[in-house]
Amino acid sequence: MWSIIATWSFSLQCVEKGETILKSGGRALDAAEMGVRLVESDPAVDCVGRGGYLNADGELALDAAVMCGDTLKTGAVACVRGFEHPVSIARAVMEKTKHSILVGPYAEAFARQIGFAEAPPEYMITETARRKYEEEKRRRGKPSGHDTIGCLALDDAGSLCVATSTCGSNLRLPGRVGDTPIIGSGFYVQSGVGGAAATGLGEDIMRTCCSFRAVDLMRGGMSAQEAADTVVFTAHNTLRQCGLKPDCIALIVIDARGNCAGASNHKGFVYACARPGESPRIVSVDPVIDKDEQED
Amino acid sequence: MWSIIATWSFSLQCVEKGETILKSGGRALDAAEMGVRLVESDPAVDCVGRGGYLNADGELALDAAVMCGDTLKTGAVACVRGFEHPVSIARAVMEKTKHSILVGPYAEAFARQIGFAEAPPEYMITETARRKYEEEKRRRGKPSGHDTIGCLALDDAGSLCVATSTCGSNLRLPGRVGDTPIIGSGFYVQSGVGGAAATGLGEDIMRTCCSFRAVDLMRGGMSAQEAADTVVFTAHNTLRQCGLKPDCIALIVIDARGNCAGASNHKGFVYACARPGESPRIVSVDPVIDKDEQED
Repeated sequence: MWSIIATWSFSLQCVEKGETILKSGGRALDAAEMGVRLVESDPAVDCVGRGGYLNADGELALDAAVMCGDTLKTGAVACVRGFEHPVSIARAVMEKTKHSILVGPYAEAFARQIGFAEAPPEYMITETARRKYEEEKRRRGKPSGHDTIGCLALDDAGSLCVATSTCGSNLRLPGRVGDTPIIGSGFYVQSGVGGAAATGLGEDIMRTCCSFRAVDLMRGGMSAQEAADTVVFTAHNTLRQCGLKPDCIALIVIDARGNCAGASNHKGFVYACARPGESPRIVSVDPVIDKDEQED
Repeated sequence: MWSIIATWSFSLQCVEKGETILKSGGRALDAAEMGVRLVESDPAVDCVGRGGYLNADGELALDAAVMCGDTLKTGAVACVRGFEHPVSIARAVMEKTKHSILVGPYAEAFARQIGFAEAPPEYMITETARRKYEEEKRRRGKPSGHDTIGCLALDDAGSLCVATSTCGSNLRLPGRVGDTPIIGSGFYVQSGVGGAAATGLGEDIMRTCCSFRAVDLMRGGMSAQEAADTVVFTAHNTLRQCGLKPDCIALIVIDARGNCAGASNHKGFVYACARPGESPRIVSVDPVIDKDEQED
């Protein structure tokens, strides 16, 4: 019984694409990758792929990952410039190498070598993105914006897969990598158990390995919703106990039967999902943290 | 009550250095970093720092990380060339930026910017390393060698910290990043709970987030030895169930009281450790896997 879930409302197109693939018997990995590719190409989405936020040097450097829950194999790339679909380069790392992560210019060289077409800066960096960058730089703004697409898909064969992609925050330090391409933090899936993907401030998400923990809790018997709520609540409070002021942390979770859930420590988090008999739709998530403790 | 543990026999010098710092009331982070720096500088250690294995392009690219168990903050660098002490650049990422991971040429630029001295290739790449590279290349050898230094330190104030450093395997694909700089996989520490660090084939270690899992099991009440054994045994068997042939996986673990342990799925794994009343010594680890299932 197939199912698909992805972060934020801009992922509705991703879920619709994935639904088309899954309901005709397609594979979870194809559904997640093809769905994420649409969002990577959409210049209106400012936190993923083309049209995304620029780093402090005015470059668009992208991170992405895939993981197959049958084999626990992953592929990830970080700080890749000049390619429209980092998620597909990540898949090639998983399928065509013995490695799991390639970074920077080396990942770009790998992509060229296996035949990915380069996308010139004037295509990847939109006028809107350039304008936002110039404005923020003039205002001497701090890094802002840290959303990610994470898409979890379950196919009729029982395979659970995940794909993630992001450009990171506006004006971030060049070379900075967040949680998106990091296994256990930004994503984790194990077929027969469940999967999770995170969005929010990568540095906070990595500190508590949110995605691995959610899957581990489902392995111990929790439902998808209990696992999502527990992980976000615990991550938020652990960071507070460490004397930190937690930034945004949100999680989507899927179990081995395709039940979906989301949890967040801030208002406004939504996800898109679909499964047999339930057309693609947007679901709003109430924060698991009391109002006076939220950041927004 | 201070305690220190580090992977492999070449870490005896690391543990001795850390002991000197810890027994005079020094900080766990300093002990771990200073200990690892000695191994990074030692040209005889072929899997860490100066004198380490070269990648397929004949370059020496280094990965390292630190984590502070009081704040759960981390700093990591991946694919850094031309600096003798990636572990100290990783510490600077943690202490001087809001980020956790910097990669490739960007991490090198950051290091230069904050005043780290560059180390020329003729110093970093030893004649022995160059000869091994040329020999393996002629033999068209596969990537080989995948040890790492991981050092866990507990100080008298109760802080648990970890430092890791590696050059990755011989002839690896340029830009490849293993588990060493990846939180949850190569390392994890939480003061009051425990810490873990891994060595072996990074791709296998990442698939099961070994270090985070060990700390989580100690949080649930397991001893350091039980956590180490359980994680390595489960990781090995999970990979087999996924149809993979597990490569080397070894783990060192410390609990909040300074009790140390190690576990491995292959023969020959040793660690170095010291604590009050126990001088620095090497401990051999019996594999947790039956002989007929071991790789070696």
